[in-house]
Amino acid sequence: MPDADTPSRRGLVILYTGNGKGKTTAALGLVMRAWGHGLRCCVIQFIKSERGRWGETRAAERMGIAWHALGAGFTWQSENLEHDRARAQEGWTLAQTEILSGNHDLIVLDEFTYPLRYGWLDAGEVVAWLRDHRPPEMHLVITGRDAVDELMALSDLVTEMCAIKHPYDTGLAAQRGIEF
Amino acid sequence: MPDADTPSRRGLVILYTGNGKGKTTAALGLVMRAWGHGLRCCVIQFIKSERGRWGETRAAERMGIAWHALGAGFTWQSENLEHDRARAQEGWTLAQTEILSGNHDLIVLDEFTYPLRYGWLDAGEVVAWLRDHRPPEMHLVITGRDAVDELMALSDLVTEMCAIKHPYDTGLAAQRGIEF
Repeated sequence: MPDADTPSRRGLVILYTGNGKGKTTAALGLVMRAWGHGLRCCVIQFIKSERGRWGETRAAERMGIAWHALGAGFTWQSENLEHDRARAQEGWTLAQTEILSGNHDLIVLDEFTYPLRYGWLDAGEVVAWLRDHRPPEMHLVITGRDAVDELMALSDLVTEMCAIKHPYDTGLAAQRGIEF
Repeated sequence: MPDADTPSRRGLVILYTGNGKGKTTAALGLVMRAWGHGLRCCVIQFIKSERGRWGETRAAERMGIAWHALGAGFTWQSENLEHDRARAQEGWTLAQTEILSGNHDLIVLDEFTYPLRYGWLDAGEVVAWLRDHRPPEMHLVITGRDAVDELMALSDLVTEMCAIKHPYDTGLAAQRGIEF
């Protein structure tokens, strides 16, 4: 529930894009900050698969944050385009349901840039729907590389995460608690 | 306590820099992810002042995460350089104490780039100390604009947050739960 002493809360659309690390991580930080203020948060992950080992899903469970991971079904192969389109549509329908539910003050659509970039969903239709149906006080956070122009135009805040140096460059494996 | 089934954890030094939004926010996301894995986290904020209204400090309290906010004392005025140097040295001494304490698996030095960039601390000495004294399994996360070269060299992972579009551009005020 929003804090009662915030007279004119205006929901923001926040986009974290770019090829660097920190996009999903920054979305998690927003969730933590909003949760600290008592806002009700929901995370929908479009690409990452459901895996109990992710630190963020364990944290969300402990914090009572709604969490959906949809990624297991995508093939990313052109011969399965219709399959991936169907999976993306399922995820988008879920996202629409959650946005309209009245249950959340902040929703993260993690890695949502890809279904739009790859044409699994129609970017124009998705963005038009968000303009018309997102409750004005709801914050929406979208992450992923290669955001389409329609998403850039929709967003109030866009940060591009630029990779300057990556631990894989120096031969380090992904570290639990940091990268997953 | 680190998960027992992680045989070869190697602490990373992670730097979020650049002029865009999301640096402190991404550090918070790392804290949430690490906390989900049961890692013990500590946040030291060098510039931001202690204010009960911050969502992240409220969240940290609920999550049992150690938190220090040191920023109230800085003047940023050249005529008070010695004062700011003394405040920065106090913060750095606290950071050294926490790093050596054995109590933390991940430490965030939020906005730590500024004391180095502005010469309140000697960047060469600070980085040399971190190279020599940081426990090898400890993750260290540093945020702030204008990171000095010594910090870039120390870090395993560097992401530059680049401002593409900012809500202030469109006349929107800072929103509780998102920006603080």
